[in-house]
Amino acid sequence: MLFFETINAYQRTAALKGAIQLDVFSAIAEGNTTFPAIAARCKTSERGMRILCDYLVIIGFLTKEEGKYGLTPDTALFLDRRSPAYVGTAERFLASPTLVDAYKDVAAIVRKGGEVISAHGTMDPEHPIWVEFARAMAPMMAMPAEAIAKLIGAPAGAPWKVLDIAAGHGLFGIAIARHNPNATVVALDWANVLEVAQEHAASAGVSARHRPLPGSAFDVEFGNGYDVVLLTNFLHHFDTATCETLLRKVNAALKPGGRAVTFEFVPNEDRVSPPAAAAFSMMMLGTTEAGDAYTFSEFDRMFRNAGFAHSELHPLPPSPGQVVISQK
Amino acid sequence: MLFFETINAYQRTAALKGAIQLDVFSAIAEGNTTFPAIAARCKTSERGMRILCDYLVIIGFLTKEEGKYGLTPDTALFLDRRSPAYVGTAERFLASPTLVDAYKDVAAIVRKGGEVISAHGTMDPEHPIWVEFARAMAPMMAMPAEAIAKLIGAPAGAPWKVLDIAAGHGLFGIAIARHNPNATVVALDWANVLEVAQEHAASAGVSARHRPLPGSAFDVEFGNGYDVVLLTNFLHHFDTATCETLLRKVNAALKPGGRAVTFEFVPNEDRVSPPAAAAFSMMMLGTTEAGDAYTFSEFDRMFRNAGFAHSELHPLPPSPGQVVISQK
Repeated sequence: MLFFETINAYQRTAALKGAIQLDVFSAIAEGNTTFPAIAARCKTSERGMRILCDYLVIIGFLTKEEGKYGLTPDTALFLDRRSPAYVGTAERFLASPTLVDAYKDVAAIVRKGGEVISAHGTMDPEHPIWVEFARAMAPMMAMPAEAIAKLIGAPAGAPWKVLDIAAGHGLFGIAIARHNPNATVVALDWANVLEVAQEHAASAGVSARHRPLPGSAFDVEFGNGYDVVLLTNFLHHFDTATCETLLRKVNAALKPGGRAVTFEFVPNEDRVSPPAAAAFSMMMLGTTEAGDAYTFSEFDRMFRNAGFAHSELHPLPPSPGQVVISQK
Repeated sequence: MLFFETINAYQRTAALKGAIQLDVFSAIAEGNTTFPAIAARCKTSERGMRILCDYLVIIGFLTKEEGKYGLTPDTALFLDRRSPAYVGTAERFLASPTLVDAYKDVAAIVRKGGEVISAHGTMDPEHPIWVEFARAMAPMMAMPAEAIAKLIGAPAGAPWKVLDIAAGHGLFGIAIARHNPNATVVALDWANVLEVAQEHAASAGVSARHRPLPGSAFDVEFGNGYDVVLLTNFLHHFDTATCETLLRKVNAALKPGGRAVTFEFVPNEDRVSPPAAAAFSMMMLGTTEAGDAYTFSEFDRMFRNAGFAHSELHPLPPSPGQVVISQK
């Protein structure tokens, strides 16, 4: 019964978060396949581990054959800590009390039409959630960052000046710098967040071409003559008027023919498909005053209103995110 | 991506709860099919209602055609407040802060092997959650209560003495009293909960044959000579040793040939199917010290150890619950 499954769905989040924190998936990958063995490896009770592992089978993360647990292919790829594609850290942002508690009273959120957390939701200056975002979400963004660097032609090596707005973990700008040795990146974000981006730039060996620009994207002077301005996971936080104000500033900072590169969840015009992109509207309803998951026609209109010549939508499979490339 | 969908699953619970509280489904059933009309009927913002309704389409509760929202058949049956099968009140128990907050730290629960809410979890004497349970869950139990009364032959009208252990809303005993005018029911539960059962007995016109017995099932004197003892949604709270202690007391209270009638989520022996029944173990892990969703072989063993001759399992479709009938 869908009602019963859905009203209990919070337990899915909680169980997955707990399993990641206990490192259950790595324990199974290491060859522990019975609940007593997994419990011993993860230092838990046997009863708790049995019920958790059975639940993880029910919700699709594990297999169970004759009492032995195994990883599905996706679980082995994304949730075994030794996998290069490990994304388990993302629970620290996506299942953080800050986000989860924001949904305690959806009726109140819907009445108001926006988040009920604080004056500006997670948009408060230097809100600590964005440091956690930068650390926790980096692994989930590694693949799209790579794909975007290639999509926009970074490997061709043209001398690019890149502005990475709301850089966060910094991965999108850093991927361009790695693929294009002639690119320099200006990374803009709150000062506390930029520390994370600078750590990542150092790990990638591109610190010399990666300069921090601390502050709010709405207040800080961008400079000009940019070839590429990155707008990744950012515009969804604001209403269209606020986005257009920012996009006019972006347009002014680009050199002629320069491109704004937007990475977003872009639902179809029906706003209910594909599911992951369309459901992102609920994330914005609960955590922002007026943000949304915008459709391509809405992005196209915003960019045209801000002075851009034209925009193109590019899927980025297997990511549920898509790229909008807008030319000045 | 299953990881992303699952880590955000708490929003499904929150959105469904909010939609029930705002009575969105009844609003659509009344003919409000656009988000401005639904928002006006439910006294909310248009932005909030648009995003909520789109999300309810994505998670399967609504349809959307050319911008107009509609109810799926199941939603019309179970979530339109005017439907006799309305179960929306169940969110007040299933999505209550008491239950949801119990899952804040599943890693700690699994380490310990039981709930981390309080000394005895929801098993504390007169825990107020059971009054909310009795009021909120009654509509979801109306159908199984009817089905069980018929399954055990109440309509034949034999002079029955029935003991309803942990009666809660009282519906299981009341259904027997309604179908069998020669049945008298003793309803046992905490005194605060029995007030709800007595209201329901009065509404059903069976108060004269429905007597309250306040206290704990483990401490109170049952009396004896019972034809039927009801054990509905109760044994799952305890470990098998505690269950067997109680079942010996139940056996002593039954007359020869009398029956214990147990209503439970009974997973298959693999403990991972069917999903709704098997997932109930997670509910018991998070809210009890040592409870579980027991398999039929476990129930059979407990009843035999307590002196019962034999037990039979009966499915009760479309309910995910099943009935175990154990003869003295």
